[in-house]
Amino acid sequence: MNTKKTYLTTKKVVRKSVRAASKPSSRDALRYVPLGGFEEIGRNMMFFEYEDEILIIDAGIQFPEEETPGIDYIIPNTSYLESKKDKIKGLIITHGHYDHIGAIPYILDKLGNPTIYTTRLTKEIIMKRQEDFPLSPKPVFEIVAGGETRQLSKNFAVTFFDVIHNIPDGFGMILRTPVGNIVHPGEFKFDYDDEGKPKRLDIWEQVGKEGIHTLMLDSTGAEVPGYALSERIVEKELEKLFRAAKGRIIVGSFASLIDRLAEIIKIAEKIGRRVAISGFSMKGNLEIAQRLGYVKFEKGTVIQLDEIHKYRDDKVLLLCSGAQGESNASLMRIANGEHKQIKIKPGDSIVLSSSVVPGNERSVQNLKDNFARQGALVYHHKMLDIHSSGHAPQEELKTVIKLVKPKFFIPIHGYYFMRWRNAQLAQEALKMKPENSILLDNGVVALIKKDSIEITDEQLPAFYVMVDGLGVGDVGEVVLRDRRTLAQEGMIVIITTLSKQSGRVLKNPDIISRGFIYLKENQELLDEVRRKIRNILGRSPKGQSIDADYAKTLIRDQIGQFLYNKTQRRPMVLPVIIEI
Amino acid sequence: MNTKKTYLTTKKVVRKSVRAASKPSSRDALRYVPLGGFEEIGRNMMFFEYEDEILIIDAGIQFPEEETPGIDYIIPNTSYLESKKDKIKGLIITHGHYDHIGAIPYILDKLGNPTIYTTRLTKEIIMKRQEDFPLSPKPVFEIVAGGETRQLSKNFAVTFFDVIHNIPDGFGMILRTPVGNIVHPGEFKFDYDDEGKPKRLDIWEQVGKEGIHTLMLDSTGAEVPGYALSERIVEKELEKLFRAAKGRIIVGSFASLIDRLAEIIKIAEKIGRRVAISGFSMKGNLEIAQRLGYVKFEKGTVIQLDEIHKYRDDKVLLLCSGAQGESNASLMRIANGEHKQIKIKPGDSIVLSSSVVPGNERSVQNLKDNFARQGALVYHHKMLDIHSSGHAPQEELKTVIKLVKPKFFIPIHGYYFMRWRNAQLAQEALKMKPENSILLDNGVVALIKKDSIEITDEQLPAFYVMVDGLGVGDVGEVVLRDRRTLAQEGMIVIITTLSKQSGRVLKNPDIISRGFIYLKENQELLDEVRRKIRNILGRSPKGQSIDADYAKTLIRDQIGQFLYNKTQRRPMVLPVIIEI
Repeated sequence: MNTKKTYLTTKKVVRKSVRAASKPSSRDALRYVPLGGFEEIGRNMMFFEYEDEILIIDAGIQFPEEETPGIDYIIPNTSYLESKKDKIKGLIITHGHYDHIGAIPYILDKLGNPTIYTTRLTKEIIMKRQEDFPLSPKPVFEIVAGGETRQLSKNFAVTFFDVIHNIPDGFGMILRTPVGNIVHPGEFKFDYDDEGKPKRLDIWEQVGKEGIHTLMLDSTGAEVPGYALSERIVEKELEKLFRAAKGRIIVGSFASLIDRLAEIIKIAEKIGRRVAISGFSMKGNLEIAQRLGYVKFEKGTVIQLDEIHKYRDDKVLLLCSGAQGESNASLMRIANGEHKQIKIKPGDSIVLSSSVVPGNERSVQNLKDNFARQGALVYHHKMLDIHSSGHAPQEELKTVIKLVKPKFFIPIHGYYFMRWRNAQLAQEALKMKPENSILLDNGVVALIKKDSIEITDEQLPAFYVMVDGLGVGDVGEVVLRDRRTLAQEGMIVIITTLSKQSGRVLKNPDIISRGFIYLKENQELLDEVRRKIRNILGRSPKGQSIDADYAKTLIRDQIGQFLYNKTQRRPMVLPVIIEI
Repeated sequence: MNTKKTYLTTKKVVRKSVRAASKPSSRDALRYVPLGGFEEIGRNMMFFEYEDEILIIDAGIQFPEEETPGIDYIIPNTSYLESKKDKIKGLIITHGHYDHIGAIPYILDKLGNPTIYTTRLTKEIIMKRQEDFPLSPKPVFEIVAGGETRQLSKNFAVTFFDVIHNIPDGFGMILRTPVGNIVHPGEFKFDYDDEGKPKRLDIWEQVGKEGIHTLMLDSTGAEVPGYALSERIVEKELEKLFRAAKGRIIVGSFASLIDRLAEIIKIAEKIGRRVAISGFSMKGNLEIAQRLGYVKFEKGTVIQLDEIHKYRDDKVLLLCSGAQGESNASLMRIANGEHKQIKIKPGDSIVLSSSVVPGNERSVQNLKDNFARQGALVYHHKMLDIHSSGHAPQEELKTVIKLVKPKFFIPIHGYYFMRWRNAQLAQEALKMKPENSILLDNGVVALIKKDSIEITDEQLPAFYVMVDGLGVGDVGEVVLRDRRTLAQEGMIVIITTLSKQSGRVLKNPDIISRGFIYLKENQELLDEVRRKIRNILGRSPKGQSIDADYAKTLIRDQIGQFLYNKTQRRPMVLPVIIEI
């Protein structure tokens, strides 16, 4: 009976009526459609369409929500693109995070295996993931790098430029389109020098000089005031902490936070600690990054997990995935005492160098509790400056807006309120007219013209496509609604055997129940249910065969009500009539 | 297949081996046991036992966790107390929040209806709640007030003192026991004057002068650095915001945050806005508080909800419950456009004067998004200083520790890590020896003696008692585990009818499934399952009756594996064999 939460797949999204008063003409217009990432964090995907050409940016997954139980991922809805796959001129991938690359193996074939434009590291991460999808076609890559301009098709040219995120080799770009220059900066934050001055602002200045029609800007940090904590400070703080640690150091972080992982290994080298890595994808990512030269460390620095016992406690550092308290990740297994090689000792220092993704607070609390119970010293980002987000906060966003000086502004990536806040920043930074900062929703078609952006009434399919095991898109709202109902109150199956000839109940009804009450302790209630059923079905005149559907409805309603009166719970009542 | 979360009812709590080397003697010792609140936020309850006397403090509920789907509340386990109910000399309730009073109607009868010692307001809130529990006995109250000392029994006397929380009429107390003075300060924060100086520190000084054996201290704020934001600043900030608002003001908060609600009504009065209240318990709490004189406002300030339309938009303020995004609360209904009387207009100001309880981030995001989509201006506590926690943060905790100067320290209320942090604060503030700050777990018996506190091996029952509808304690781990499994992958019921005589399958097996796949779209899979079943059951030699239990096991295993191979999902497979 817990109705505390609002389930979002059934959420009412209250939409403003669209702005366009007269039907907008799409002649000479660039059609722009976000397919994901505009009502959530994740499943980022958008495309541009001009005449007979389509250019796609990113193809990410979204992690499951509380209201999508049992789901592995949510991917963008590509049905519109599938119907126009011949027009697709390329898929640009801005960087190697799963919310930008994760959907690729699911959609590549459906989109006709378009050329993927991306950098070397991102390519390798995509290829690593493809190994798990033997049926997905072999991707075709065009490797690009910051500073390059490519003519991707008749109407689209792209100039790539380097940005700093928390994974190497990400880029931003100027899309040179027939209606003007559109900037998509990927995801970024500022990099600071040792004096705390932001580096490479000249890149943004340069972009601004090109004359920018529209700037799109990541909104993940748009509610966060100020500037990002410099990674140089994070580095110093980590070094201080590591130097002070007397026992083993166990660092929990994200597998995708490659820059941070590299920093940590560098510090370990500096202070003479060997590094062991626990976590499959963390290991994989570091191997790729090292092979391509993005992460450098001396031979012997990284050791195998089972070698850790060969070194003194103050000579090792263990790098683990699972800082969000994921139950199968190595950090949680260590905390629970379930890790084969690593058991916590008093004096171990646990360093959580990551933020807590909303929704994971309780799992992370559990991590911290269990480490502390065993006498470990736990440090997290609210206690010390040992983590910095990869997403530019307000002042950095405003700086970019000021340097790029766009005519129009489209906040991307994030919930509505975050994007609304981002739009406010543009209005503050440039005194931009509110109508020039455009808030879109997933699936809404916008027409970008030389001197305007119009939001149309056209809505492309953008609802959740859910991946559950091998099924892609086969779990829909009905299945999810059932899962949620089953989770709340469980179910009861009532199997009644009727004689076809006499309509009589042939044997005592069978009852199975799960998640409702513990049947073994509730025989009395069961007996009452059985009596009720005989009662319900006995009502039909003797000899007259009872209609099975009608009998089911009677059982569902009356037993449902009876159970509610007895327990104030509403299990799913599933009547089965077997006619013999 | 989402295994991201660790379920906490099945969590591994790694416990340190207890400290007591030799078997501690309980002679002359005060037995102290926390029954709830020591591994969570909520269901606060503890008791003291000396010779044949027991004194209980608080009896709260905990709100359901992600891993307790469908549960209404979790209450403390009182089985030990029930077995000794004749010894209970009183139940002291520190303040009127549900995590301190909510379990009362469930346990009062079981504990022999002990006298409840509390203040006037708390009494009225308890009585209001009793209305929903007609079978619970009529509580017997002794009204106490700050400054009073009561001899509750031969061994226990209590001196009550006023504390500031965010609900009026809370208190702290000095328990005068045969082993020494023990301080339980209830829950509190500092109150600041207009110059920002903390008020009434003299109370804590006075407490310190009494000679304190043990200080117990709420750990909810123990991870938060610094001092609490003064309510005076919150008040000023709210007034500034309200004065600037051009349209209607809609404030979302907690029903239990009575002090804040009173502040808001006071400001509304000052700036000439009428106040309408939407939310059953908020209304109820304000009525009680007003009746007892804790909240004062002029006649005519508070209007009925349906009168709101009689006033200009800039002359009304709507006070709503549901700032956590609870789906049935009025604020969410307004945001969703489902509220009967209130529809959002552009220019409405939404003010969320509350924090976000961990786990509710997504629901609150949904609130903000939907308000912003409709053109409302949304303000929350991360944007402006419009909320302050009711729990003292680190510097306030340290100040109290320094003034009270206890010999021993027991951090109470909160997760292990919070209590560990609180213990650190005591060590910092008083250079207290680590062994004098005691970390307990729910159910662990501690012996408080004149010169020591010993943790024993004795563990009283303290596991979750869950309330679900009318059932108290009848939902156990089995039912919850089933709910969680059903939520993840759903279930499939397979009903096979066998002839008793021939052992033959009599008709095509019936299959019901919920939460697994949408059967209507998966007829082929169903047909395969049916074929498989005939196959499995056909294997028994003709004419030989197959054992039903064995058949069920075969079906469960083989169909389970078959479905997993086909879908990579593991629904609960429930075989039923009907023998005719």
